[in-house]
Amino acid sequence: MPVIVPVILCGGSGTRLWPRSRASKPKPFLPLVGDSTLFEAAVLRCPAAGGFAPPVVVTGHKHLDHVEQQLAGAPGAQVIVEPSARNTAAAIALAAYRLPEDAVMLVCPSDHHIGDADAFAAAACAAADLAAEGWLVSFGIEATTPETGFGYLKRGEAISGTGYRTAQFVEKPDLERAKAFLAEGIYAWNGGIFAFRVKDFLAELTAHRPAIAAGVADAVAKGTEDGQRFHPDAATFAAVPSDSVDYAVMENTTRAAMVPADMNWSDIGNWHALHEALDRDDNGNSVRGIGDVELVDCRNVLVDSDGPRVSVIGLEDVIVVVDGNDIMITTVSGVQKVGKLSGAVNQ
Amino acid sequence: MPVIVPVILCGGSGTRLWPRSRASKPKPFLPLVGDSTLFEAAVLRCPAAGGFAPPVVVTGHKHLDHVEQQLAGAPGAQVIVEPSARNTAAAIALAAYRLPEDAVMLVCPSDHHIGDADAFAAAACAAADLAAEGWLVSFGIEATTPETGFGYLKRGEAISGTGYRTAQFVEKPDLERAKAFLAEGIYAWNGGIFAFRVKDFLAELTAHRPAIAAGVADAVAKGTEDGQRFHPDAATFAAVPSDSVDYAVMENTTRAAMVPADMNWSDIGNWHALHEALDRDDNGNSVRGIGDVELVDCRNVLVDSDGPRVSVIGLEDVIVVVDGNDIMITTVSGVQKVGKLSGAVNQ
Repeated sequence: MPVIVPVILCGGSGTRLWPRSRASKPKPFLPLVGDSTLFEAAVLRCPAAGGFAPPVVVTGHKHLDHVEQQLAGAPGAQVIVEPSARNTAAAIALAAYRLPEDAVMLVCPSDHHIGDADAFAAAACAAADLAAEGWLVSFGIEATTPETGFGYLKRGEAISGTGYRTAQFVEKPDLERAKAFLAEGIYAWNGGIFAFRVKDFLAELTAHRPAIAAGVADAVAKGTEDGQRFHPDAATFAAVPSDSVDYAVMENTTRAAMVPADMNWSDIGNWHALHEALDRDDNGNSVRGIGDVELVDCRNVLVDSDGPRVSVIGLEDVIVVVDGNDIMITTVSGVQKVGKLSGAVNQ
Repeated sequence: MPVIVPVILCGGSGTRLWPRSRASKPKPFLPLVGDSTLFEAAVLRCPAAGGFAPPVVVTGHKHLDHVEQQLAGAPGAQVIVEPSARNTAAAIALAAYRLPEDAVMLVCPSDHHIGDADAFAAAACAAADLAAEGWLVSFGIEATTPETGFGYLKRGEAISGTGYRTAQFVEKPDLERAKAFLAEGIYAWNGGIFAFRVKDFLAELTAHRPAIAAGVADAVAKGTEDGQRFHPDAATFAAVPSDSVDYAVMENTTRAAMVPADMNWSDIGNWHALHEALDRDDNGNSVRGIGDVELVDCRNVLVDSDGPRVSVIGLEDVIVVVDGNDIMITTVSGVQKVGKLSGAVNQ
């Protein structure tokens, strides 16, 4: 297996998990599941003992303090500070231009939860092996529900013991199509986890989005080192087109592959998804945080309090979050509206 | 019309409206409906301009501070401080032994809400007129729902333009009986509001509960004045039997009468009853307190916050109360369990 360099993408605006997630401390930096933050967990999933090189973190100015504080235990880590947000194609290219051309990058979002670290490690190895052969590899996350909020990967012909060509990238489908995908069994979720050899990624980016490749190369060439930080040139980077890696590279390359990953993954994309990722009692209830909680006649209730005592009677499928001066209460079916609450919008 | 002396009974333990109502500041002393507290409203309903004498308040040591603070604007008020709690027969007798024998007492609980003050005043006049003729008069509160938590009064023959004999006192009925009462139309709720001439009340008490009458007379005779306060003798009062005025007097006298009172009355006996007494918007929602509140897709929701912002999505028939370090959330159907929450029990 080649050495794998974790490239951890770290951003997020923090409205869908408001009020716990805030613009000033968004989702990756919160201990939403277990005791580690999602960012810490992303770093811990790629240990040196598992064949991983020290991580490269790509983040923005406003999250730099959180990143460096939570990276404390990761020797050799490098932090690339984006002068502005130019989406994932440019973010990954920043890391690529800083790495040897034969290195294999494992691109990981830092705002997802992965319950089964062993399954993640196995998929990472399989993906890295394919990447070392020149494939651009997506993790194909086992679809367990007909989600309409994710992109899907259609499995093509087998190219290794565990890998397949990606036959098709499918944008967020409607519910009917999502149900059909689930029934068909050859569609997986696209969770934004990728393995690329540096030179292959850059070649494909240059072929399909030459302006992004050239712009990022220039921003890195003119950039400055500052301890573990690297600052790409701001003016140059600001001119780089903003595009996702999916659009820019994955949907264009002829060498898209996927490895299936059944690893108890969640994007923790809203409070319901977080509740699903947590341990529950026999009534489906979960309690997080440090406030005392009493639940009477409740089912499928999540209470997360940062201090005050919360006493609840008779609720079902409801989420209660207490954070500072904010109390947010939503039904499971209302979680998509959390980000539009005035408290979340006017941060 | 005779001069009427309001006798305001003021106690309460404060568990059913927890966490707003606390042992240290129970229901009568809170501004639950409108800007006045229930106690203040009870005093204000009996103004000098309406033919009322200054009030006599009967309360316990632990509520004395609240009573005196909230009585500030009531000149001539007298406060009888119960050395111990001996129920309503003894409490009313304390006031009776301090008043002229021809005075008419209007006995009022201080933990109820009355929306229609004019209807109250009219019923008080009618009741006082009957009391001045020697009747022991209950307010017969118009029954609007088949409540199983109240006692009922059955209307008998007419004895004046607005008064009737009380044909029967009925303890809390089951639902089927309560529905039958409502259908029959001659049953009213017993809200614990009474008009008695002092000498008639004491004569009936002496006839049916001589130990209470004698004990209270003795406690008053041995009592001490202290400004507007009067302290009955503690040891003597402690030996007085504990009984309600309903059992001790009303169910035994042959001169029980009632005046109908349709005055938008509520005992505010739980959070649902409070919500029913409040103004609501077109969706049935009410907001109380000083915290910002945002309601999205909510119906029949009451939010009462003493500070924190509360944002709610998708709830129906739910009550949310924020008080100090406590957040209480209950469905309407769960309100009877509020008093059993550990926060309410362990005050």
